[in-house]
Amino acid sequence: MTVRIAIAQVNPTVGNLNGNRDLILDYYERAREKEADVVVFPELVVPGYPPEDLLLKPNFIKNNLKTLNEIVELVEETIAVIGFVDYDGDDIYNAAAIAQRGRVIYTYHKQLLPNYGVFDENRYFKRGTHNAIFSIGNVKIGVNICEDVWYPNGPGYYQALVGNAQILVNISSSPYEIHKEEKRKRMLATRASDYGVYLIYVNLVGGQDELVFDGNSFVFDPAGRVVMEMPPFEEAFEMVDINPGEIFRSRLHDPRRRKIVCVDEENVKVDIYMAEKWDVEKKSIPHQQIVVDTPSVERIYKALVTGVRDYVRKNGFEKVIIGLSGGIDSSLTAVVAVEALGRENVVGVSMPSRFTSTGTKSDARKLAENLGIEFYEIPVENIFNAYLGELAPNFKGREWDITEENIQARIRGMILMALSNKFGYLVLSTGNKSELSMGYCTLYGDMVGGFNVLKDVLKTRVYALSRFVNDSKGSEMIPESVIERPPSAELRPDQKDEDTLPPYEILDEILVAYIEEDKSFEEIVAKGLDPEIVKKVIITVDKNEYKRRQGAPGIKITVRAFGKDRRMPITNTYRDI
Amino acid sequence: MTVRIAIAQVNPTVGNLNGNRDLILDYYERAREKEADVVVFPELVVPGYPPEDLLLKPNFIKNNLKTLNEIVELVEETIAVIGFVDYDGDDIYNAAAIAQRGRVIYTYHKQLLPNYGVFDENRYFKRGTHNAIFSIGNVKIGVNICEDVWYPNGPGYYQALVGNAQILVNISSSPYEIHKEEKRKRMLATRASDYGVYLIYVNLVGGQDELVFDGNSFVFDPAGRVVMEMPPFEEAFEMVDINPGEIFRSRLHDPRRRKIVCVDEENVKVDIYMAEKWDVEKKSIPHQQIVVDTPSVERIYKALVTGVRDYVRKNGFEKVIIGLSGGIDSSLTAVVAVEALGRENVVGVSMPSRFTSTGTKSDARKLAENLGIEFYEIPVENIFNAYLGELAPNFKGREWDITEENIQARIRGMILMALSNKFGYLVLSTGNKSELSMGYCTLYGDMVGGFNVLKDVLKTRVYALSRFVNDSKGSEMIPESVIERPPSAELRPDQKDEDTLPPYEILDEILVAYIEEDKSFEEIVAKGLDPEIVKKVIITVDKNEYKRRQGAPGIKITVRAFGKDRRMPITNTYRDI
Repeated sequence: MTVRIAIAQVNPTVGNLNGNRDLILDYYERAREKEADVVVFPELVVPGYPPEDLLLKPNFIKNNLKTLNEIVELVEETIAVIGFVDYDGDDIYNAAAIAQRGRVIYTYHKQLLPNYGVFDENRYFKRGTHNAIFSIGNVKIGVNICEDVWYPNGPGYYQALVGNAQILVNISSSPYEIHKEEKRKRMLATRASDYGVYLIYVNLVGGQDELVFDGNSFVFDPAGRVVMEMPPFEEAFEMVDINPGEIFRSRLHDPRRRKIVCVDEENVKVDIYMAEKWDVEKKSIPHQQIVVDTPSVERIYKALVTGVRDYVRKNGFEKVIIGLSGGIDSSLTAVVAVEALGRENVVGVSMPSRFTSTGTKSDARKLAENLGIEFYEIPVENIFNAYLGELAPNFKGREWDITEENIQARIRGMILMALSNKFGYLVLSTGNKSELSMGYCTLYGDMVGGFNVLKDVLKTRVYALSRFVNDSKGSEMIPESVIERPPSAELRPDQKDEDTLPPYEILDEILVAYIEEDKSFEEIVAKGLDPEIVKKVIITVDKNEYKRRQGAPGIKITVRAFGKDRRMPITNTYRDI
Repeated sequence: MTVRIAIAQVNPTVGNLNGNRDLILDYYERAREKEADVVVFPELVVPGYPPEDLLLKPNFIKNNLKTLNEIVELVEETIAVIGFVDYDGDDIYNAAAIAQRGRVIYTYHKQLLPNYGVFDENRYFKRGTHNAIFSIGNVKIGVNICEDVWYPNGPGYYQALVGNAQILVNISSSPYEIHKEEKRKRMLATRASDYGVYLIYVNLVGGQDELVFDGNSFVFDPAGRVVMEMPPFEEAFEMVDINPGEIFRSRLHDPRRRKIVCVDEENVKVDIYMAEKWDVEKKSIPHQQIVVDTPSVERIYKALVTGVRDYVRKNGFEKVIIGLSGGIDSSLTAVVAVEALGRENVVGVSMPSRFTSTGTKSDARKLAENLGIEFYEIPVENIFNAYLGELAPNFKGREWDITEENIQARIRGMILMALSNKFGYLVLSTGNKSELSMGYCTLYGDMVGGFNVLKDVLKTRVYALSRFVNDSKGSEMIPESVIERPPSAELRPDQKDEDTLPPYEILDEILVAYIEEDKSFEEIVAKGLDPEIVKKVIITVDKNEYKRRQGAPGIKITVRAFGKDRRMPITNTYRDI
């Protein structure tokens, strides 16, 4: 017997129980029509992931169970593996239902709960302790959940080596980070090979607040070779036929399997639940060998596009508005927005002041023309003068300083918000991670917005992405002068970012070491960097925590984004220098 | 032998390792001079609590160990119990050092790690598994940490009933919540009585970002009676003399002790570490029976004062600025700020518009006079007109709506920020929890500020606190007209809060049920509330998550504050109605 497994790499919405039910049933129906024996869905696909403190609402748990039941009732011969929140009368579990013929054959509870980085699963779930597998005829299949597969001796170890499962299914909701795809692929290949199993890895796709799930589901054979790879950042549906005879052959040829000692094998029980065989004459499907090769910069770009599209759409917005300064950050933000939402849903506004150069002003307009988006120019000068007038009695005898710079930035924020309020646009803020790290941005000014596309993108990556955009679009989408011009906030005469900040190549190297790697002052200096610059950067990053706390949410693309990934106190006098 | 125990209820600062060291040594010296046998400090007093992601920095861990060593080196006969972060070469622990004569006698590792509400301890710490006690002569003392004492069969159970400790010390950093003091006191009394021990409970005091620790340390006797209670919300130092003979007598009279069965007693090992006896002829101190009675509303007021004072001072600010509207929220905020920082450090600004009534305008001034604070009046009308002028081409043909209201609120926010930038004031925002719940506030407008004093205070509590202020100050500190006038944002003609919101008595009842108790729509309606109103409130609370995410930090006083206490997704289509 050949087992046909379908993989539904879907994009549910957190909290949208009925919508998620319909999505699951749509894909279920596709799998059933294609005569799949099993169809697998990602982790917590019923409630959406991560549901955060919705999990503390008793009714939410009950409604998620009700939704699961509505799905299970419609499940026929094709077995469905569906992530949901289980409840046993006392505790809740991150769970997978294995369902067939209108009933749940058994329910698996996730055993290894992540509680680091962006994850808080110990806050909600009790860990499972029960290892089980199910069988279709003589084929045994083990199901486990996300983090479970990241540990060499996790439940999959017992399912494969004590329970003798030939196929392991791992249902995941694993968010994207740069280069995580490589690490994940290598780890999964090793698991398949170590356990001697076919490994089906199904991952969630789509954006949810600051997270983007990249999909990129896989099937590995017992030698750890990729049998099938699904594309990143899009919903997808694929199938594989697995021949248990092949598994038996590969096991006979793997001497390691007979040498592996389960130290606690005698104490580990793996229950087997029987599923029904679907006795239908199936048309065989070609054994696909799909391999996806998406270079790193393209993946980042797709992550940003997916993150913006899903934040805007899932929150019920149609159009976005962006302040176009003629600089590279707002230009790239606009390009991403157009890719995500279509040019008809993006509005650009240029808000020149007395310090805006002719070059940047015309570049803003040129970019809008290149993109074909609606464009307005609203000068800030009169409003700026009105502020200066009213504040004159208080400011008498004081020099021009950062105050006047901030007022200009804030007027721009206020104009964007006024247009947002009047026309229902979502404001996209345009700051990048380098600026945000250094507080080189104005709270309630350029930080204004509902969503911050480049929040986790360092300035040097902004350049790389901009060049990628121009290269891949086959045209000068972002005007070359935007890329060439030295960055400036244009809030006082002849201002350049590098008057205040170290050159971005150096700054970003320090930021990666300090923020993403938690390196100490000495370790960063040991890379050959100027101690005075390193010291200044560290102090500046630390003291700007208060600004970031009030910043807009934005898309995580690195191992350590600002947001729930990095929980620093504001009140904190520790200085690591 | 009598054992003299000193309790140091101190206020450290997160990350201020040298400052915390000096603070600990000051109190250590006081205890030594008073011939205390033991002096106890709160949980994680060396790094400050909670250190959050500072705990992911290897250097921070090392420097905290270095600081502990600097303290321990100076420890003499008086034993010190000091909270710090321990490191065993692989993992870190929330730990207590028991130190004497320049060395650590033993180190206890917290066993029960809180990971709910505002707590994330599973994110950082490994749990301890080792039960131990120490002895001075024939007196055995068990030390455990905060959460450990909240479980009836936590480590204290084994320390007292297997190890036969006569005294238990629980070092805590337990944040304030309304009515928590009653629950905590009852629980601690029960533990002392259940275990038949003297229970020393030392709690941190002071504000740290959104948390305020209330101190309010205790000593209970083996019958569960309060021997000594320390004041809430201030640093304090007290001592008790405990006579082990009394403990022996009470144990002989407690038949329960001989009946308690430790189900796993044989498997639990409690090691005993010997401390040195301090052979000094001590002057006895009077056995104090101090009982503190602080009514609930006064505790809330003190929590707010402590929270503001410590946020402002620990972040290095001198002065704060507050927009005074003549309404009750900004009035109460100003009163709290003056109490916390002194009148010379509070600046009030009235920013009238065309919709500001004569009454509110004169009340703002009157309040400033009552408080004796610096006061300015800066009208927003000219700036408002400048915005309307520049936006006129875009807004042509559109009606006046929330946009124009928000522009006024935002101009006020911008003026406060301009004064903040120019003069280095911290802006205190004045919104309350009811408004913030309903999004009845303007992002980048009245939400502007570094710290939001009333963030977790419902409107009905704002009234109770205002009446408490006027009653306790023996004068009409907050003008009676401020308290009597129906609340209004004054952003359009004849506006009243109750045009948009349900009456605050009803609104707050729904908010408590929905936010603090996670009750469902049906459960709230079952209280006899109008289903249409309940539905509107729930939907409005849910859809304003995005505003709160960008709000200023503020003081947690309830069981469920906005902030890290309530982690709701923004992208969330679940509606519990």
